[in-house]
Amino acid sequence: MKYSKLFGKTIKEPQSDMKAASHRLLHQAGFVRESTAGRYFFLPLGNLVRSKIINIIREEMNKAGAQEMIAPVLHPLELWKETNRTDTASFELTTLKDRRGAEFALGGTAEEMFVDVVRKFQISYRDLPFNIYQFSQKFRDELRARGGLLRVREFLMKDAYSFHANEEDFKKEYKNMWDTYSRIYKRVGLDTVVVESDNGYIGGEYCHEFVVESEAGESKFFISEDGKYAAHEDVVDKNKYKGKLIEKLGIEVGNIFQLGYHYSNKMDNATFAGEEGSPQKYYMGCYGIGIGRTLATIVEAHHDDKGIIWPDSVAPFQVYLINLNKDTSKADELYKVLQGIKWQVLYDDRKDVSAGAKFADADLIGIPVRLVISERTGDKIEYKRRDSDRSELLSISQLLSKLKK
Amino acid sequence: MKYSKLFGKTIKEPQSDMKAASHRLLHQAGFVRESTAGRYFFLPLGNLVRSKIINIIREEMNKAGAQEMIAPVLHPLELWKETNRTDTASFELTTLKDRRGAEFALGGTAEEMFVDVVRKFQISYRDLPFNIYQFSQKFRDELRARGGLLRVREFLMKDAYSFHANEEDFKKEYKNMWDTYSRIYKRVGLDTVVVESDNGYIGGEYCHEFVVESEAGESKFFISEDGKYAAHEDVVDKNKYKGKLIEKLGIEVGNIFQLGYHYSNKMDNATFAGEEGSPQKYYMGCYGIGIGRTLATIVEAHHDDKGIIWPDSVAPFQVYLINLNKDTSKADELYKVLQGIKWQVLYDDRKDVSAGAKFADADLIGIPVRLVISERTGDKIEYKRRDSDRSELLSISQLLSKLKK
Repeated sequence: MKYSKLFGKTIKEPQSDMKAASHRLLHQAGFVRESTAGRYFFLPLGNLVRSKIINIIREEMNKAGAQEMIAPVLHPLELWKETNRTDTASFELTTLKDRRGAEFALGGTAEEMFVDVVRKFQISYRDLPFNIYQFSQKFRDELRARGGLLRVREFLMKDAYSFHANEEDFKKEYKNMWDTYSRIYKRVGLDTVVVESDNGYIGGEYCHEFVVESEAGESKFFISEDGKYAAHEDVVDKNKYKGKLIEKLGIEVGNIFQLGYHYSNKMDNATFAGEEGSPQKYYMGCYGIGIGRTLATIVEAHHDDKGIIWPDSVAPFQVYLINLNKDTSKADELYKVLQGIKWQVLYDDRKDVSAGAKFADADLIGIPVRLVISERTGDKIEYKRRDSDRSELLSISQLLSKLKK
Repeated sequence: MKYSKLFGKTIKEPQSDMKAASHRLLHQAGFVRESTAGRYFFLPLGNLVRSKIINIIREEMNKAGAQEMIAPVLHPLELWKETNRTDTASFELTTLKDRRGAEFALGGTAEEMFVDVVRKFQISYRDLPFNIYQFSQKFRDELRARGGLLRVREFLMKDAYSFHANEEDFKKEYKNMWDTYSRIYKRVGLDTVVVESDNGYIGGEYCHEFVVESEAGESKFFISEDGKYAAHEDVVDKNKYKGKLIEKLGIEVGNIFQLGYHYSNKMDNATFAGEEGSPQKYYMGCYGIGIGRTLATIVEAHHDDKGIIWPDSVAPFQVYLINLNKDTSKADELYKVLQGIKWQVLYDDRKDVSAGAKFADADLIGIPVRLVISERTGDKIEYKRRDSDRSELLSISQLLSKLKK
């Protein structure tokens, strides 16, 4: 991609009212723009990162045996009434009527919808267990949006729902999802703490938050010195844990919930045919990851004074190629060679921009590898990683062998 | 994937009230389920087809130079007021208020949103042209939903918006998108007719529909005997075309629109800095494809009495493997071998289902290649394509070389 043709460019000055680093940097570097408070456009650069995060989550969920599907965004309000969540979640639930008077909720989570689609089938013990998930837009009518993508009113969520014949079988899946989440966060470059938490209006008896320690976070939790016990401030039991507990702040990037019989008790026909043929209630769990918040948290964890430092796994491009020569032929050719070997290159081909501004933009945008072609580099190419201060002059063949690693 | 573990299985009897073949077959074969009228779940099988269609569209749009991004689903209602579309589109526009009283529209298309994000940047003639697009949920408050996925109230749409310095430049992109759409429909297995049409509440002066001839369609159009002139019934000019015109019915699967200055005239600051620095209005076009309707249209075009016949490019799996032996070891091994060479296999491993039922399900689901392992096939494997009546007995090495083609 040529930077001159990219929609959504950097701007010179950060906005001083944007306190969180992710908010400020994602705006300044041209990854996102706010539509109205708490509702965001992902510009082409931001969309590339978002897609890479989605693909990593999808790969790991599929490897774990989960099956992707998709539900409507508008949920029939009667389903939320069936579980009484119009009351328990009402403060952040948006509802609407269509022109025939049918009532809908803009879903914050989709437990009722997934139970509703499952009960459209006559399932038996042979069909269990299964874990079905979707990536879909979710809505929270938050009183205050804050911190850019950290707390928003509309966002893409990966939400998964698992159905089991009994608690024992569910527990295997809870462990499976715990391990899957650990792999996902590791791959996107986040160190997470798994924190006991409260089920809130989701329902069920226990759950765990995946939290990234950060001063920009709103999740207050306590952790033991050996790291083996961690609990959210709402559920911490200082009697249960005898040692010293340290208070921390973090960003909640995902959750796993035991739901048990919460939904199958409240909803009609939430059953499967058991081995003897009689209907039995299924035992459930659910598992969520907010995509935008995960993206912002990666920026909180990976930036410096100059800008973002994307981990390779989620970077919008792999290489930022800067041309400083008046004659563009050498850079044009390198751009073609790199595209030929399927490297993702953002080529800063701008002619009306100073070298200093190009270097500043490279640091701000945070693509892992920066290449420079200039009079000074002669026949060679300057190579520098965003996460290092050291630059090297490489021949084209040295460069290619380095990129292949 | 093992069929025993798949969520969303076939059902024995089609529903007689489902008139359109795509409606009936996608329901019976376990690809979709209706939530409320006109709002659909895509089950895992349906989601796989949907993803393949999305990926083909994305590949072709990117090749054509368009840039993917994503806008919020809730559009500030004031934007729709700015262009007066609250009146012109009001009959199918759903609106809502959040708890602070802010008003939103559930977007049917997103012209205002895309102009709004573009005007957040100070763009100049150097930044033009660009074409930005998204895959996002769209809403139409239709009085009557009908025909399964053919006319719905909520659906995923690929919508693209292009911005140009002048009409001449726009015309190149209109041609580019026309060609891109032709490639997309060809790849997903659809023969389209490009039909002159009416811009309706989208605005602008001219547009073209991509239509697939079908008795299940609602789009009535006229076409000349040589196929060189085709126009929707609303805009057909029988004086303009002197020859004989034939009346046809078809399904509208996509549109390309000239918008001209329609939106940049109505919206403030919809401008770029020209070469002399003064603000000039940009010239626009927009380009839409409905994903669910495209999927249903593929079924209308590719089915027989027994079920769906998916084109290879969008099939949910490449191979349907049926085991009829009591001993599963041979089929288990073939399943592993095929997975090893990255073939997408749906393995019908059910033990409580007759051979006849498995063959019927294979035909109903419509995966391109069916493989059977039974006592009758001995050391070999029975190979049959869904679109052919001929079956062959192949050794494993013959099979692998056939699949590689």
